[in-house]
Amino acid sequence: MIGPVESQSVAAMKGLFDTNFFGLVRLVREIFPDMKRRRRGHIVVMSSVLGLQGLIFNDIYSASKFAVEGFCESLALQALKFGVNISLIEPGPVVTEFERKLYEEAASMDLSAVDQETLDIFQGFYMAYSKDVFMVLGQSPDEVAEHTAKVIMVEKPPFRYQTNSLYTPMTTLKHADPTGNLPLNAFHQMVFQHDRLFKASLSLLKMLQWRKRRDVSYNKSP
Amino acid sequence: MIGPVESQSVAAMKGLFDTNFFGLVRLVREIFPDMKRRRRGHIVVMSSVLGLQGLIFNDIYSASKFAVEGFCESLALQALKFGVNISLIEPGPVVTEFERKLYEEAASMDLSAVDQETLDIFQGFYMAYSKDVFMVLGQSPDEVAEHTAKVIMVEKPPFRYQTNSLYTPMTTLKHADPTGNLPLNAFHQMVFQHDRLFKASLSLLKMLQWRKRRDVSYNKSP
Repeated sequence: MIGPVESQSVAAMKGLFDTNFFGLVRLVREIFPDMKRRRRGHIVVMSSVLGLQGLIFNDIYSASKFAVEGFCESLALQALKFGVNISLIEPGPVVTEFERKLYEEAASMDLSAVDQETLDIFQGFYMAYSKDVFMVLGQSPDEVAEHTAKVIMVEKPPFRYQTNSLYTPMTTLKHADPTGNLPLNAFHQMVFQHDRLFKASLSLLKMLQWRKRRDVSYNKSP
Repeated sequence: MIGPVESQSVAAMKGLFDTNFFGLVRLVREIFPDMKRRRRGHIVVMSSVLGLQGLIFNDIYSASKFAVEGFCESLALQALKFGVNISLIEPGPVVTEFERKLYEEAASMDLSAVDQETLDIFQGFYMAYSKDVFMVLGQSPDEVAEHTAKVIMVEKPPFRYQTNSLYTPMTTLKHADPTGNLPLNAFHQMVFQHDRLFKASLSLLKMLQWRKRRDVSYNKSP
């Protein structure tokens, strides 16, 4: 669910929360009591970097993943008392059919309630860059699954685990300033004032990623 | 809404989200387009420290405040582009009738689905300490209002503003470790292993707070 908040119905928002948040809550209520009884268990939850750091035009999706984080953080201390672990997997962009469908939906959504300037930012700017970001930073579902398997197998599982190291600088900015102004102003400058630099950085990252992947495949078949 | 997640109905959880989260979303959708048109405005949102850091037996309340934070963080960058500010006020415990009612409800809630050990932690431990924490760390609604007025009046409003400086160490711990294990283990030890030390710290804080308030009232009427 992406797009300006003015164009989205509250019913659709509630539908998203029903899946992303209340779906998790319902499942946890079913399995947690048994895990506590056995004093063993590991609840591995698919969260997102958007549960750590908001993103323009992802207001409701990000809010649903923040809710997942708050729920798990609150539950984790009680769980630990019973020897039960909770882990949050936080992928960045993942290249799947789901993502492609999202873009198709965004292209055909009803934006009649949205002012022209917001529309220009959303369509001419966000949608254009978003595809670049996906191409450069996007992971395959297999990569995310490998990271998740690692978290499941490790003896002392981390509470939080980001699968995409290229995304870490964005969440680090947030931790550096409790007023929240540092990341906000940094993103604002990066996106709206230095957009050429932003585009250049993406190209550089793209090249580095391409070399890294080439090196990895060389190593795999020496 | 406090208590073990096993004892709460999904309908009640959705009711809480309808007020705390979707209430805000509905309001923002009404006022934001006009503010963008005028290229002026300041949306001041009542969040909570529980939007930054989860708390045992506050799973759903905390999740709803996390959702508020994620929503506002996502919207803030778009708002800034139009010269509109968003600020999140994050109080710690506030001593009000609402809080007292919450405790009354907790005392009479249906806990039949909850195992004995969880009950012991909730009733014998959480509820007992919670009242102490409120007495020691609790602010008056007037104090929170004064802080909020300051955020409204200041020329460059902060995105986040915590009203209660005594609560800051809890949120700082979170920022210090991206895996989330540091705050989790620290709270676990503090609450379940060193509970005498925890109680002693509360008493010390209580004394310091009492002295501070006494000094403040001396200064007010010299």
